[in-house]
Amino acid sequence: MKIDILTLFPEMFSPLEHSIVGKAREKGLLEINYHNFRENAEKARHVDDEPYGGGQGMLLRAQPIFDAFDAIEKKNPRVILLDPAGRTFDQPYAEELAQEEELIFICGHYEGYDERIKTLVTDEISLGDYVLTGGELAAMTMIDATVRLIPEVIGKESSHQDDSFSSGLLEYPQYTRPYEYRGMTVPDVLMSGHHENIRQWRLYQSLKKTLERRPDLLEHYDFTPEEAKMIEQIKQEEE
Amino acid sequence: MKIDILTLFPEMFSPLEHSIVGKAREKGLLEINYHNFRENAEKARHVDDEPYGGGQGMLLRAQPIFDAFDAIEKKNPRVILLDPAGRTFDQPYAEELAQEEELIFICGHYEGYDERIKTLVTDEISLGDYVLTGGELAAMTMIDATVRLIPEVIGKESSHQDDSFSSGLLEYPQYTRPYEYRGMTVPDVLMSGHHENIRQWRLYQSLKKTLERRPDLLEHYDFTPEEAKMIEQIKQEEE
Repeated sequence: MKIDILTLFPEMFSPLEHSIVGKAREKGLLEINYHNFRENAEKARHVDDEPYGGGQGMLLRAQPIFDAFDAIEKKNPRVILLDPAGRTFDQPYAEELAQEEELIFICGHYEGYDERIKTLVTDEISLGDYVLTGGELAAMTMIDATVRLIPEVIGKESSHQDDSFSSGLLEYPQYTRPYEYRGMTVPDVLMSGHHENIRQWRLYQSLKKTLERRPDLLEHYDFTPEEAKMIEQIKQEEE
Repeated sequence: MKIDILTLFPEMFSPLEHSIVGKAREKGLLEINYHNFRENAEKARHVDDEPYGGGQGMLLRAQPIFDAFDAIEKKNPRVILLDPAGRTFDQPYAEELAQEEELIFICGHYEGYDERIKTLVTDEISLGDYVLTGGELAAMTMIDATVRLIPEVIGKESSHQDDSFSSGLLEYPQYTRPYEYRGMTVPDVLMSGHHENIRQWRLYQSLKKTLERRPDLLEHYDFTPEEAKMIEQIKQEEE
């Protein structure tokens, strides 16, 4: 995968050197290039200007971003503009992006940007219903969520099939050594060595947690007969 | 505001030196301390272990996190665990956190953590419905969204009252110079200098965009009579 990032703050992206994204780059599975569009501004440092029609704040101008975009070598990229008014990023969206060969991220900053920039874009994406000072942290977060889904990136060392959202359910509680810590012990079933009981307990916990915290995730969930029976049981116990 | 961050990767937080968070620290409005709980592990580098009951991946152990937590000087902090199964972060949540004097973020990593860590925690928060390799990017994003709402941080230079979500509506399109760029021009109303027409046009565009893209935001929205009339007009035009 090749990722090009248009930003005024390339130095903010150092977290991508760490963790799985850094490993994917070392393995040659990922190439990331940064393009500081300040360098493309017609006048030095002139990347923003006042909004037409009045209002507070400064808007990113179209020209530096168009010129930086034109200079990128590309075939058929997904061009992502980070915008709180965009489609909300989620796990299926990350899975979709993980299939792409070329991603371009355009990071806004300051108070906004010239609307005409959107003509370059295939996807307007929001990280969630909150406002950030710029698109950089949002881009890094999306890249982290996406890159870990590229086959061969996580590898055999672990798996993301049990993740919250990947299965459609929230994850069950987990415990590691010691058995007792500050008076708190591990549930007996996990110490039993009985694989089938453990599997059932975990599934039950996942369903219970999802029902309590995120019933919206169950609205379109495709229950197995076992899961449907457990959900009935959970609902009865709550009464 | 004082923020303490428990993490295995303090060096990932360099983006917080930039932008508004960096400015808030320079102004003395914000103090951030990092605590690498690897240093608190009983055995060197022994921060994780296998899950009881079997399964892939390694879990963060309770002890290094409890000990790092105990060592933090604190009065009445909000203690935030970053977890995809937590309450979803949004703008009202950011506004709530911006009122606090002490925040502690616990960043998970690897495949998960010992459930007993949750006994330290006041808030389990998710950045959105996607899975990240660790809590660091999520913590930075929440800190960015929160710190910009602290009074005196953004200051007079700009305002967040017009932001998407702050008003309850998505933001209207904005334009800056030049009037024509690559054949695309600015809407005439914005060039008119007629403040009332501009205000109405912007409100109309905000309502239209929100209705088209995020009708869910309008479900609990408190319409003014003017807005209610515009919404009717927008709906009629779509027919």
